[in-house]
Amino acid sequence: SNERTSDNARHTNVSGGSAKQLIGMSEQEQKVQTQTFKLIYFNIGGRALATRLAFAVGNIKFTDERIEFGSWPALKPTTPFGCIPVLEVDGVPLAQSNAMLRYVGRMANLYPEDPFQAAKCDEALYALYDAGAPLSPTFRMKGEEQKKAREALLDGPLVKTIEAIEKGLQANGGEWLAGDSMSVADLSCFCFVRWLQSGKIDHIPPTLYDHLPGINALVKKVGTNAAVAKWIDEHETKKK
Amino acid sequence: SNERTSDNARHTNVSGGSAKQLIGMSEQEQKVQTQTFKLIYFNIGGRALATRLAFAVGNIKFTDERIEFGSWPALKPTTPFGCIPVLEVDGVPLAQSNAMLRYVGRMANLYPEDPFQAAKCDEALYALYDAGAPLSPTFRMKGEEQKKAREALLDGPLVKTIEAIEKGLQANGGEWLAGDSMSVADLSCFCFVRWLQSGKIDHIPPTLYDHLPGINALVKKVGTNAAVAKWIDEHETKKK
Repeated sequence: SNERTSDNARHTNVSGGSAKQLIGMSEQEQKVQTQTFKLIYFNIGGRALATRLAFAVGNIKFTDERIEFGSWPALKPTTPFGCIPVLEVDGVPLAQSNAMLRYVGRMANLYPEDPFQAAKCDEALYALYDAGAPLSPTFRMKGEEQKKAREALLDGPLVKTIEAIEKGLQANGGEWLAGDSMSVADLSCFCFVRWLQSGKIDHIPPTLYDHLPGINALVKKVGTNAAVAKWIDEHETKKK
Repeated sequence: SNERTSDNARHTNVSGGSAKQLIGMSEQEQKVQTQTFKLIYFNIGGRALATRLAFAVGNIKFTDERIEFGSWPALKPTTPFGCIPVLEVDGVPLAQSNAMLRYVGRMANLYPEDPFQAAKCDEALYALYDAGAPLSPTFRMKGEEQKKAREALLDGPLVKTIEAIEKGLQANGGEWLAGDSMSVADLSCFCFVRWLQSGKIDHIPPTLYDHLPGINALVKKVGTNAAVAKWIDEHETKKK
């Protein structure tokens, strides 16, 4: 069923929404209409893309503030953990990319209502987080050292974790990672796998997940979601 | 206010609860009464302690299955990601320690109802997760290499992240990390800081967080919570 997905558009965010427009909405929906959201990150997808896509799928208006790498040193000490992305909600900062992804996901109907399925969604988010962690230090390496480190990851967590996620996907019926419609776990998986398959990371062959039919179908399905495709075309491909 | 905290005991889990006992409970509360929970981990606190404490504070019955290190190789391939802890809910496995902590936390009234405060709780959980990550590889090191690596962490993430958490705690009024009562973020912080301050980790001085009054008060407050103190006394101190 696509109950949650078809429902996403209800959050159409109209700035200066009148009281009339707010009638018939739940308290949470009214809040989404009146809160302001500013997502601050570099002009890349990286750790902000899944949250941007959640806003887009939920049709929730937000300021997509992209900073130049040169402005980062001055901004860094003003952020909660010396890191971005940061999401400002009515001016109050929320850090940690997956905390903000889950928060926006709840507003965008991209987080399972059932507590156990919500936990399975969290499980996938943490697993994807772990899968990417050992890749980060390799971006500071060069030449043979980088090659060796990345090849070891192909033989380890980078592939094994996604294989485990494929198994979980199949156990949930093969359609979505948690629950019975698209969730933030699917968005996160889409962003991660699409990046790894891009051919843009030296020594990471774009074929590394070709043996995982469920994951590939999922990435295709998320990528052809109208709101996702539109966002990427208008805001990521051109900007990057 | 301690609304959520004082409410925790309502989940008294009675095995074989009769239909009569279930009257007046929400669907979620009835589920907690009839579901079975088995937490599988080594006979240490580690990544399972916060979840065990959440069960204890919520007065939710669970099987606390502790395996010997020698049994792990045989068990490993049967777990979702080749890792424990795993929480079996009616026999269905849930992996990733913070996914299970959040799940149990929601049942135990240890997770903020307000979505933004829930996100601040998630933010702290992710920050604590990050703070511990660079410590893990040092357990495979020895002698001078280990000393150097750990001293570098004292000058970096291990202290800076907890300093950032202290700041967030103060911004939230100084009592709790998120919302206005104890949450799973406080339990996680308690477990982490208590371990780092234990003096049991070579080259990590137990004084490393002495300059953070809010964190120390929080750890003391969580540690003297009746359910937490009782659980640690009866199930952790003696077993370990």
